[in-house]
Amino acid sequence: MPEANQTPTPSVKDLLSTPASNQPTVLNAWVRTRRDSKNLVFLALSDGSCLSTIQAVIDKEQGSWDEKLLAKVNTGAGIQVQGSLTASPGSGQAVEIQATGISLYGEAPQESYPLQKKRHSFEFLREIAHLRPRTNTFGAVARVRNAMSFAIHRFFQERGFFYVHTPIITGVDAEGAGQMFRVTTLPPENPPRKEGSTDFSRDFFGRPTYLAVTGQLEAEAYALSMGRVYTFGPTFRAENSNTTRHLAEFWMIEPEVAFCDINCNMDLAEDFLKFIISTVLEECREDMAFFNQWIQKGIIDVLKEVVTKKFARVSYTEAMKELEKAQDSGSASFDFPVQWGADLQSEHEKFLTETVYKGPVIVTDYPKEIKAFYMKQNGDGKTVRAMDVLVPRLGEIIGGSEREADLSKLEARMDELGMHKEDYSWYLELRKYGSVPHSGFGLGFERLIQYITGMQNIRDVIPFPRTVKSAEF
Amino acid sequence: MPEANQTPTPSVKDLLSTPASNQPTVLNAWVRTRRDSKNLVFLALSDGSCLSTIQAVIDKEQGSWDEKLLAKVNTGAGIQVQGSLTASPGSGQAVEIQATGISLYGEAPQESYPLQKKRHSFEFLREIAHLRPRTNTFGAVARVRNAMSFAIHRFFQERGFFYVHTPIITGVDAEGAGQMFRVTTLPPENPPRKEGSTDFSRDFFGRPTYLAVTGQLEAEAYALSMGRVYTFGPTFRAENSNTTRHLAEFWMIEPEVAFCDINCNMDLAEDFLKFIISTVLEECREDMAFFNQWIQKGIIDVLKEVVTKKFARVSYTEAMKELEKAQDSGSASFDFPVQWGADLQSEHEKFLTETVYKGPVIVTDYPKEIKAFYMKQNGDGKTVRAMDVLVPRLGEIIGGSEREADLSKLEARMDELGMHKEDYSWYLELRKYGSVPHSGFGLGFERLIQYITGMQNIRDVIPFPRTVKSAEF
Repeated sequence: MPEANQTPTPSVKDLLSTPASNQPTVLNAWVRTRRDSKNLVFLALSDGSCLSTIQAVIDKEQGSWDEKLLAKVNTGAGIQVQGSLTASPGSGQAVEIQATGISLYGEAPQESYPLQKKRHSFEFLREIAHLRPRTNTFGAVARVRNAMSFAIHRFFQERGFFYVHTPIITGVDAEGAGQMFRVTTLPPENPPRKEGSTDFSRDFFGRPTYLAVTGQLEAEAYALSMGRVYTFGPTFRAENSNTTRHLAEFWMIEPEVAFCDINCNMDLAEDFLKFIISTVLEECREDMAFFNQWIQKGIIDVLKEVVTKKFARVSYTEAMKELEKAQDSGSASFDFPVQWGADLQSEHEKFLTETVYKGPVIVTDYPKEIKAFYMKQNGDGKTVRAMDVLVPRLGEIIGGSEREADLSKLEARMDELGMHKEDYSWYLELRKYGSVPHSGFGLGFERLIQYITGMQNIRDVIPFPRTVKSAEF
Repeated sequence: MPEANQTPTPSVKDLLSTPASNQPTVLNAWVRTRRDSKNLVFLALSDGSCLSTIQAVIDKEQGSWDEKLLAKVNTGAGIQVQGSLTASPGSGQAVEIQATGISLYGEAPQESYPLQKKRHSFEFLREIAHLRPRTNTFGAVARVRNAMSFAIHRFFQERGFFYVHTPIITGVDAEGAGQMFRVTTLPPENPPRKEGSTDFSRDFFGRPTYLAVTGQLEAEAYALSMGRVYTFGPTFRAENSNTTRHLAEFWMIEPEVAFCDINCNMDLAEDFLKFIISTVLEECREDMAFFNQWIQKGIIDVLKEVVTKKFARVSYTEAMKELEKAQDSGSASFDFPVQWGADLQSEHEKFLTETVYKGPVIVTDYPKEIKAFYMKQNGDGKTVRAMDVLVPRLGEIIGGSEREADLSKLEARMDELGMHKEDYSWYLELRKYGSVPHSGFGLGFERLIQYITGMQNIRDVIPFPRTVKSAEF
């Protein structure tokens, strides 16, 4: 194999935005396709820097070529092309490379290379997740995912938020048993026992530990010191949900803001979504045009409208009335019950966003029974200051609330729910010492990528998905 | 409790950089200290936005004040001050707030609030990790950690790298048993058994799974599609190391670059460190001045020199000769053996960086026996193209290499080591299909924070440290 470069060489993206100069250039890339025509070989070359390939043209009558090497320059091969950047006579692009030499790093034997020119199903590509970023779709997903990640950091950094790394391994089973993965170094065979059960004092952390389902509680500790903070890290659910919307391991963004009420929280959530969407529309034009054409027709127009339109804001009670009205008038029928106190189901979210409000809706003030213990209790004794952002096609994309900052109210609610307050003593101290109003929300990163790209299955927007019975790679 | 704000109010940092205007202003913050003098109350207020507090002055003879409320405005209390931003007659700062009103969100009962004015040991503060960001030191650590995180993303994004989220839960025990945490949903009591051992087919993923110790192998898959990628995520070691340098859960940065040899890799590592350090020096002046004065005297000058000086680059063999020379001449004595083939110990790294090269050193071409299977084999049959960056005070801060891109050499090495090649079939396919030279490195984020801040104990540079027998909060 030829040696690599000591210094970086230009990328395909660099070259495609360079005017034809006829100057010598070098490109390292992989062959996407090869076409032979008489003495000419046309290579479409990609290095992942952008969706487009650049064409390299080999004229076998110019110079001397190693035919045995050239025979290996096929789809998937990693090569270096030496040549000059010239104006392209074809209509597809402004420039191409007139090759004067080719070095072959590694071939891709055509008889076994799974990514031949034909189209592959996403199901098939999931089985070769280590190779699928070499395709147009998954390259585009990777670039959009990257642009969104960086946009998230920029959004918060520009607004004075601090990025906080909350723990992944946690001792608190925050959501009740059964939904969490246990983390252990005890041997699966014959773990140490004490008084008839597993002796967790001999586990690595001296206690049972789990993978965190949220970083919110720890983020609150930082918000109540640093003012404005956010997390962006992996979270875990051991849910047996084999759907196109669930992953066992996914990335979540959780801002938490001191001195911020539910209105300020709604503004933040709306600004956040609009910033991320408009950044992607601006910075990933080529990839978004691809999604618009091949994955979800019209997605760009939908997103443009979301960016400009004020999100509807309604209370849960109002939303329920809309659903009841539709049901009573016969203009809609639902499988799940529509009655005050019931949770909104996908069909309800779909109806609200797609039919009633025709766009994103923020629903607030849910019944306390269907929301988490830490949400601020309203004066009515029935509802809490929750706020969920629902979007067409996907449903709930953000869940948040103002937090209960009053120690006695929080403790009373935990007692009602039969929670072990002693497991949350540090969290309660945040209300005991200098408590202030604060709010926050959580957003599943992969759902947002689905929303923006139109990709149907959440397994196709994360590099190596973890789902029930699947942890390959 | 008074209601929170519907829209964000200015931060302490905002106000301190605003000229005195005598205009009305509102500040939400926590009381750091209170001093009473005749009819005046002086409050030092912090909201975490910067190290400095801003002074608010209450003149009890001006306006009417609720004495019972004022009595609760003590260290730790969360309050809102209404007043005007005026020129400060004191020498400490340009502006202060002349208070016309105070609202109390939440008091901090002085008899129990653990963060009174006196200095606290870091050991004590570790026990109240949920409150310690309210102190100067841990606020500064949090801000520097945040600035470094964002600088890391900027560094890579500006250079065309894509951020890749590699999996946390993995099926491959990449480093051999014993160093990894197992992830499971099997019940600890009476897990299902089959043919005499635990039936992992009934575990969540249908197989034993672990927490990843690295994202490198998956990052390589993306580098070999997208060109330049990096990870920045949590990694895990179930090592029983109770030291000031080890965490069971820590964040790691791992760039991986196609078409990049070991020299290009060394340049990247050096540029990376210099960029992060100079960004922190530039953007965290106040916090760095604090560390320079209170934590590690002279750290700023040391870092400034690192940024300007070219890192020394020596082979492992040369480094060993330097150590032997020093030992033979009696100018140094080491506890661990100095002989070709042995790994560099902390004492050796210290001697090389602090005495021989007086600054960071990149050591290359280590004996293959002490390095990982995936490193590119040199022609001598004895060494591999590893590159470790060593720094004074801390030792190894970056470990990297050019990767073995030749399938047959990689397989031969795995056979030598008795590895199960079938567990790595997808990884080997990266060499089978379009293999190209590539390189990368890994950097433990917390070690870098220690290096930059001078903080002695790694548990003090991550919000909620996880170590042997400790997973509180």
